[in-house]
Amino acid sequence: MDTTSIMSVLADHASAIDTSWTLLGAALVFFMQAGFAMVETGFTRSKNAGNIIMKNLMDFSLGTPIYWLIGFGIMFGGSGALIGGLDFMTNGGEGGFTTLIFQTVFCATAATIVSGAMAERTKFSSYCIYSMVISAVIYPISGHWIWGGGWLAQMGFHDFAGSTCVHMVGGVAALVGAAFLGPRLGKYDKDGKPKAIPGHSLTLGALGVFILWFCWFGFNGASTTAMTEGAYESAASVYVTTNLAAAVATVTVMCITWIRYGKPDVSMTLNGSLAGLVAITAGCDMVTPFGAAVIGICSGFAVVYGIEFVEKVLKIDDPVGAVGVHGVNGALGTLLTGLFAVDGGLFYGGGVHFFLVQLLGVVCVIAWVAVTMTIVFWVIKHTIGLRVSEEEEVRGLDVMEHGLSSAYADFMQIPTVNGFYKPEGEYAPTTEPVSLEDAVPATEVPSTGSDGHKLSKVVVICRQSRLESLRGALEDIGVAGLTVTNVLGCGVEKGAEEYYRGVPISATLHPKVKVEMVISRIPVEDVVDTCRKVLYTGHIGDGKIFIYDVQNVIKVRTGAVGYDALQYEK
Amino acid sequence: MDTTSIMSVLADHASAIDTSWTLLGAALVFFMQAGFAMVETGFTRSKNAGNIIMKNLMDFSLGTPIYWLIGFGIMFGGSGALIGGLDFMTNGGEGGFTTLIFQTVFCATAATIVSGAMAERTKFSSYCIYSMVISAVIYPISGHWIWGGGWLAQMGFHDFAGSTCVHMVGGVAALVGAAFLGPRLGKYDKDGKPKAIPGHSLTLGALGVFILWFCWFGFNGASTTAMTEGAYESAASVYVTTNLAAAVATVTVMCITWIRYGKPDVSMTLNGSLAGLVAITAGCDMVTPFGAAVIGICSGFAVVYGIEFVEKVLKIDDPVGAVGVHGVNGALGTLLTGLFAVDGGLFYGGGVHFFLVQLLGVVCVIAWVAVTMTIVFWVIKHTIGLRVSEEEEVRGLDVMEHGLSSAYADFMQIPTVNGFYKPEGEYAPTTEPVSLEDAVPATEVPSTGSDGHKLSKVVVICRQSRLESLRGALEDIGVAGLTVTNVLGCGVEKGAEEYYRGVPISATLHPKVKVEMVISRIPVEDVVDTCRKVLYTGHIGDGKIFIYDVQNVIKVRTGAVGYDALQYEK
Amino acid sequence: MDTTSIMSVLADHASAIDTSWTLLGAALVFFMQAGFAMVETGFTRSKNAGNIIMKNLMDFSLGTPIYWLIGFGIMFGGSGALIGGLDFMTNGGEGGFTTLIFQTVFCATAATIVSGAMAERTKFSSYCIYSMVISAVIYPISGHWIWGGGWLAQMGFHDFAGSTCVHMVGGVAALVGAAFLGPRLGKYDKDGKPKAIPGHSLTLGALGVFILWFCWFGFNGASTTAMTEGAYESAASVYVTTNLAAAVATVTVMCITWIRYGKPDVSMTLNGSLAGLVAITAGCDMVTPFGAAVIGICSGFAVVYGIEFVEKVLKIDDPVGAVGVHGVNGALGTLLTGLFAVDGGLFYGGGVHFFLVQLLGVVCVIAWVAVTMTIVFWVIKHTIGLRVSEEEEVRGLDVMEHGLSSAYADFMQIPTVNGFYKPEGEYAPTTEPVSLEDAVPATEVPSTGSDGHKLSKVVVICRQSRLESLRGALEDIGVAGLTVTNVLGCGVEKGAEEYYRGVPISATLHPKVKVEMVISRIPVEDVVDTCRKVLYTGHIGDGKIFIYDVQNVIKVRTGAVGYDALQYEK
Repeated sequence: MDTTSIMSVLADHASAIDTSWTLLGAALVFFMQAGFAMVETGFTRSKNAGNIIMKNLMDFSLGTPIYWLIGFGIMFGGSGALIGGLDFMTNGGEGGFTTLIFQTVFCATAATIVSGAMAERTKFSSYCIYSMVISAVIYPISGHWIWGGGWLAQMGFHDFAGSTCVHMVGGVAALVGAAFLGPRLGKYDKDGKPKAIPGHSLTLGALGVFILWFCWFGFNGASTTAMTEGAYESAASVYVTTNLAAAVATVTVMCITWIRYGKPDVSMTLNGSLAGLVAITAGCDMVTPFGAAVIGICSGFAVVYGIEFVEKVLKIDDPVGAVGVHGVNGALGTLLTGLFAVDGGLFYGGGVHFFLVQLLGVVCVIAWVAVTMTIVFWVIKHTIGLRVSEEEEVRGLDVMEHGLSSAYADFMQIPTVNGFYKPEGEYAPTTEPVSLEDAVPATEVPSTGSDGHKLSKVVVICRQSRLESLRGALEDIGVAGLTVTNVLGCGVEKGAEEYYRGVPISATLHPKVKVEMVISRIPVEDVVDTCRKVLYTGHIGDGKIFIYDVQNVIKVRTGAVGYDALQYEK
Repeated sequence: MDTTSIMSVLADHASAIDTSWTLLGAALVFFMQAGFAMVETGFTRSKNAGNIIMKNLMDFSLGTPIYWLIGFGIMFGGSGALIGGLDFMTNGGEGGFTTLIFQTVFCATAATIVSGAMAERTKFSSYCIYSMVISAVIYPISGHWIWGGGWLAQMGFHDFAGSTCVHMVGGVAALVGAAFLGPRLGKYDKDGKPKAIPGHSLTLGALGVFILWFCWFGFNGASTTAMTEGAYESAASVYVTTNLAAAVATVTVMCITWIRYGKPDVSMTLNGSLAGLVAITAGCDMVTPFGAAVIGICSGFAVVYGIEFVEKVLKIDDPVGAVGVHGVNGALGTLLTGLFAVDGGLFYGGGVHFFLVQLLGVVCVIAWVAVTMTIVFWVIKHTIGLRVSEEEEVRGLDVMEHGLSSAYADFMQIPTVNGFYKPEGEYAPTTEPVSLEDAVPATEVPSTGSDGHKLSKVVVICRQSRLESLRGALEDIGVAGLTVTNVLGCGVEKGAEEYYRGVPISATLHPKVKVEMVISRIPVEDVVDTCRKVLYTGHIGDGKIFIYDVQNVIKVRTGAVGYDALQYEK
Repeated sequence: MDTTSIMSVLADHASAIDTSWTLLGAALVFFMQAGFAMVETGFTRSKNAGNIIMKNLMDFSLGTPIYWLIGFGIMFGGSGALIGGLDFMTNGGEGGFTTLIFQTVFCATAATIVSGAMAERTKFSSYCIYSMVISAVIYPISGHWIWGGGWLAQMGFHDFAGSTCVHMVGGVAALVGAAFLGPRLGKYDKDGKPKAIPGHSLTLGALGVFILWFCWFGFNGASTTAMTEGAYESAASVYVTTNLAAAVATVTVMCITWIRYGKPDVSMTLNGSLAGLVAITAGCDMVTPFGAAVIGICSGFAVVYGIEFVEKVLKIDDPVGAVGVHGVNGALGTLLTGLFAVDGGLFYGGGVHFFLVQLLGVVCVIAWVAVTMTIVFWVIKHTIGLRVSEEEEVRGLDVMEHGLSSAYADFMQIPTVNGFYKPEGEYAPTTEPVSLEDAVPATEVPSTGSDGHKLSKVVVICRQSRLESLRGALEDIGVAGLTVTNVLGCGVEKGAEEYYRGVPISATLHPKVKVEMVISRIPVEDVVDTCRKVLYTGHIGDGKIFIYDVQNVIKVRTGAVGYDALQYEK
């Protein structure tokens, strides 16, 4: 084997090593979409859970082809100071497909940051349009300045993995978007004081944060885009600084909230982890572990006060704190790189020049994004509209925008809402058939009054699995309205013993449904007989039927009272 | 260092690079199990959540040793046209352990696809048997044809990462299994029209889709099983085509559902992402990004109409759309490779031969799986049975198959169902002790009638944390049945101010429990006194007790009315 | 290119390859934190979900800087037999940053194991202190013995990836901690028999197990810390043995529970997967696949009987089975390595020496951790206290330790608890405005008694979205208390058809709220009129109002009855 062959093998190996590293990093950065989706859905309300998932899914799915068609070219397709060029349906140019996929997932990250700040009130179609514009033009242009060889890159601006380029761009766009939208209904009281609107799943939100932290090792680590020629040392250092800044920021926020609110706040502390990650992203390759720890502390303060500033002073409603996390800390981290960079940082004897370049870059990118996004949102607002109607917001975007009754439709609901109902005459008990007449003497139900207009309430407590049959049977005899509640029944019934991890479960409270109806025309006896026919199996747990007097009933829409309020109508 | 040493080091490096890439890919493909588990559990009902998790866990856990014992040998242990050979307890043959683990996780993927289509009604034991058979024999044999050097491989059939070999095999098995099972109760109305049965957690389902997309970079990317000798270019290209096809398919499905149903459907769009991923899998190494985008569009149409065809025309109930996603798009992707492959595809001037080979392969694998799975399911159905009983299905597989009262037993339940109950005389309030007699004058509860058979309802609204003590105390005085409901109380109580992310929570509605009982033998006064003893702490929020008349009560099982309906019995 | 240059490139490549492998492994091991968080929160109750997340987050976030400041030096900063040295703010010493990050994530794993066993009753501040101590001193010292060149390493003790070093250390600490704490309230009945306390989300718990299994490929696989010089063979073998042991252990536990409890237990089987992973960790590089399978079987038995032993014999309450999984199987796996190691194991002709070294190591590490953790927990218990108060435990650690009303505050709650309330005179219906007077003739509500002290109950069933307005309006007219319940209403209302995956949803049951109030001073007519004003939109679904007689009402705290029980007070 001659030297030329060896050199060619070595070059092949180097490409293989570097590509492996970068591609696996790209996969991790893609997975940040899952992290963002979980954080954003967990920290908002369940009535909008499907909508926020859909927005996260679509900004990636729209951004990918758009960036391939236009955005990548603008960012990397030329060496202009302000803008790249056109490279329609790019093959990734010089960097090839590795660069294309790596840059695509970064672009999508910037876009997705915004959905959290605009959550729970943005029209889905408008969000899709915004998402395409940021991926096609706005992110690529400032990205060209920084990573595409544009004017900031030429000045020595340093943003290793995207504190400014990705996170601050997303954060500023988020701020503009949330300001255009206005706060969610009920966010501010009449004195302008903010009110807390807790989300629906802290565990999913926390899972999202863990996913993001995990993926950040790809985001920052793989931004070396190489491991050979000594880059492995840089990558290892990036892992350490990234992790340390995040950990220290988390501890910092925990301490701040403990002192300020009296108790360590869970969701703000989770924001703290993200703040540390965002802040270290610009300089993770240039700072020492000690520098990373200090940046972590700074970002902890920045995120707490940043979120409060946005919420209480600017009075902009940012449901997940995206502006505080990505906007404020993206800027902060970029500036701190100018101070803590071992090579050129002010605190390491590098003078003020590098810091000023960083400052200039931050200011110009803020201006660029703020201006362009203002135009974008202004146009959307005055054409197709940016915000859903008040009714849509109150009822939830899932049902109004996506026809999704709930993201958790079956969850802890009546289990058989979608079960089966066998029409009259076929109320076969699910266990072995029993002849009702043989087994049980007919019950003499006391008359509930001779006057046909007497009102009675019948309440049935029974197995959840019988609900659908009961509902059908009652409809057949003309009962016009039911109210169904999930309850726990604690009765004389002793169920079969069940085990959980080998330990018997003391199942003293059994899940049941309570079915309530108020009747007048239909005799109580008929209702009771029907219920017994449907519910009877001869086994313990068949349930009970209760009868009460009712003084009156009023139908809100028609104003009908008593008997009339209970009748069917067109 | 002489040339021989250098060549040996280079060979070592090449193995290290390729093995790293393949092993990390294997880890990602393993993680698809989590994705499938989340998709399948999220898109089905909560009463079966534990069961579907268990099936996903077990098909991997059974498949791993079975494939090691038998399956791998059949697939790779020989060079026959139809079948490999025996390699009991394989060490992975020529490819070694790297090949063994990589092929094991692929095999398990094929097996796990089926659980979604057969969800919510399959006997767990039967599922375990099916799972062993597919991993031992069915998947390995068609796998041998395609990847093991069998007749299809020899003909030039191309299925890079398993559109046919893995996904279509799973999809066809899913179709056969779901057809044998029949639809879930309530899926079709009496006219045969399908009804929607929404799942219990769209967020978990979406998380599963994101996990699957992420892991698909391992599934397709690592199927190069190498990075050296230029394979890194192929790997990068695979990343780009895989991602682009998935994104475009997602957008396509969103648009189709928007047009057809009037609103963009979230769960179908999530299926769209998977459809794109399945379809690109066969040809991801042979198509251009443009080809990938077109394949994405095709797969978007295929999944929507495929799922509708299965559901509405075939009337086969596939709860998660596994047949439409994996079966239809597995076949489609393999065929489109014959059209879009740059090297040999019909649209790139390669003539019709390659396409016909692809077509032949697809047809033969469908036939193989359909016939063998029909035999397998037929035998299972006529021996141990394939489907659970109607009662098991209605009550849920968690409780019936696994003795698991609910996968979410404690969720949003009465918090202290499993709390502690101190026996009579020890109702120590959880805060500082107060002498009830000193603090509060005895209440004179008005008599509720001299007739012992009068029926009264007592309703207590109190703190959730006191439920267990209250239940115990009422049992001690002989109250035979309670109904417990989670409610929100809005009273004069002002709680301590709580903060959420630094903003006070306006807690005007407090979680409470409502405990209802109807009594006759036991005097109302005794019940009221007992409740007060247990509930009294002297703090705001101790609760209220309401008393109502009851007209009658009927016990369904015995037909007893009034007083008799309320007594304990054996 | 001369030989020296070639050798330098080869060295660079080797470092690049090995570093890539190790760093990606570190990222995976970090992600185990997410797995632990999900397992622990899923298997415990929802009232503590935020707290357990916070503990998992903090043990990593505190452990990272502490280990950097002190722990790493103690473990690797010298070659003493018992202890390393000081290396304040380490740069990772010889191994550099790659070693530092890799060891940091391992340290955090040991710490996080304990949180599961101490869940649901530990003070948060005490947990933070424990967490710092184990990361700073206890884990590093025994770690030094094994991995840092200490006395056990010198004797030939083999613990490849940390069965003893990480898992058993965590497991023993967990046992000591749980013993110090005592069982959760209600865990044991008065006869000392354990009761099951099911968790709140089996699906999240299962997701955690899948995440852990996935990450274990990094934990064990990357513990080669190299891929070059033939290490890739070892890594591939580790992947196979790790996966096989886990799978076989899972199957074993399923079979055991099926036989013992009559049904395959889901959550215990999930524990089984983890048990297999823990047990194989010590010897995964030294055993054959067959040996791994046998170790898997042993660990399956060990985890089931281990958990039962801890729970039923030791009567120590370990909510997630951490002691059985990590402690018992950590020890077992280390010992079995002495039997099954191909090189030196007793069963492979290596004699008893290696096994005795393994035994000695296990015993000494148990002693070390047990003694030191006893001191740590004793000191904490007798200074700031280890356990929360009884009231805190009953109400939940989320609200008491973190001021978090619930981790699922909005989940399945009344959707508009945090919605908006427009003050009197502004009850604008969310749809088009209607003049109530014009549209509906005034309703004559029958008088409900001339006596001002008559008690009436008014029940309103209405749209969830109107709750907040209704509550405000009723407060304005002086209604002092409401009870709100989520119900399903089944009425004549026919909603707009909605689609789920293209199939119409038969929405016969609509989510509604039931608002109940008992009034005396305020006339029923006023309440009815107010409700109608707020609820009226003229559309189907406006709701109904029911009126009932009430016999009496008692306020628990004051003992006030009837009229007096319903009035506001200070």
